[in-house]
Amino acid sequence: MEKHFTFETLASLDQRYRASLINSLGGFKSVNLVGTINKNGQTNLAIFNSIVHLGAHPPLVGLIVRPDSVERHTYENIIETGYFTLNHLNATNYIPAHQTSARYPREVSEFKACGFNEDYKDGFIAPYVQDSKIQIGLKLREVIELKINKTLFVISEIQHVYLPVRSIMPDGFVDLESAGSITCSGLDSYHSTQRLSRLSYAKPDKLPEKI
Amino acid sequence: MEKHFTFETLASLDQRYRASLINSLGGFKSVNLVGTINKNGQTNLAIFNSIVHLGAHPPLVGLIVRPDSVERHTYENIIETGYFTLNHLNATNYIPAHQTSARYPREVSEFKACGFNEDYKDGFIAPYVQDSKIQIGLKLREVIELKINKTLFVISEIQHVYLPVRSIMPDGFVDLESAGSITCSGLDSYHSTQRLSRLSYAKPDKLPEKI
Repeated sequence: MEKHFTFETLASLDQRYRASLINSLGGFKSVNLVGTINKNGQTNLAIFNSIVHLGAHPPLVGLIVRPDSVERHTYENIIETGYFTLNHLNATNYIPAHQTSARYPREVSEFKACGFNEDYKDGFIAPYVQDSKIQIGLKLREVIELKINKTLFVISEIQHVYLPVRSIMPDGFVDLESAGSITCSGLDSYHSTQRLSRLSYAKPDKLPEKI
Repeated sequence: MEKHFTFETLASLDQRYRASLINSLGGFKSVNLVGTINKNGQTNLAIFNSIVHLGAHPPLVGLIVRPDSVERHTYENIIETGYFTLNHLNATNYIPAHQTSARYPREVSEFKACGFNEDYKDGFIAPYVQDSKIQIGLKLREVIELKINKTLFVISEIQHVYLPVRSIMPDGFVDLESAGSITCSGLDSYHSTQRLSRLSYAKPDKLPEKI
């Protein structure tokens, strides 16, 4: 049995039901902890599932920040210092990672409140998450405010990447499963993955092969 | 052992190695088939892994289109008609779905070339993928060209959603695993998922519970 929602029926749904439904529709999502610091040395850690690849050369990442959310502390720190980190979640830390979405007061660091250790390296100002296997240091390049709903689109450049040597395949592909990275869906569901396969570069004259 | 890449070492990598590496770093991604049609009735189908949630009310989705890719046929059709569809992948169709990324000539429909059936319903102009369990019909609202690398950010509004009744939980959450949806990583890796758990809404005074 198939259910059909229209623009009008979606608008008539209870707000929380609608948020949960619409957040589920795109499919499984990237999920990362975003680490920041302000000019007074106050750190912040927040979970984000709205990260998107923008290009490899220069290496660019897009981050969506909703206007009325706890993500604003993160955003304010990014604007203040120009830097932040992305840190992959794994099966052992997704529960405290989810906890970073609670509305802590500004003076509370979610690193401390949720049991994460700050990791500073190579002179980068923003804190990484110590037990995260894949850590990325980013520099703010541009913010675009979407007129349609005041959402902020934060465009940043990759400055540093740290990851396990064993997870990097000979062609540059990163085996995220070997690094323990997980995915999420909707607003609150976390999932481990199992590879179906990698597929060869697609060409019109033949079907892709498993590689 | 940990590997460290900097902005400079990333820039010095072989182009394909770098693309594969950088595309892997954000984590697991949404993966969808985008269905379009032009004014002459010529259809197009293309795989996208750069979809991002922008808001629930109104229900908005962002789609990243790279400037120099086969995705341009899709983009041109979206501009021409103002409409397109998103269709979830599953374990039985991800190989032909990957094949839609081959550089077919403009006059070839990837629906036909890759073995997908077009599904038209409720007067919507763009074709859905018939065997896709979750189908979304979207209306173009705005395109933003990112000055930094000419990437196009396509903002669209959800007009129609079709999904299995059994996959919709009482609170609106969609159980993507029950719908057979899969995820992807890098440029060419496809993965099924296994739920770790859903977690309760986070509050500062207590740890989230599995729900």
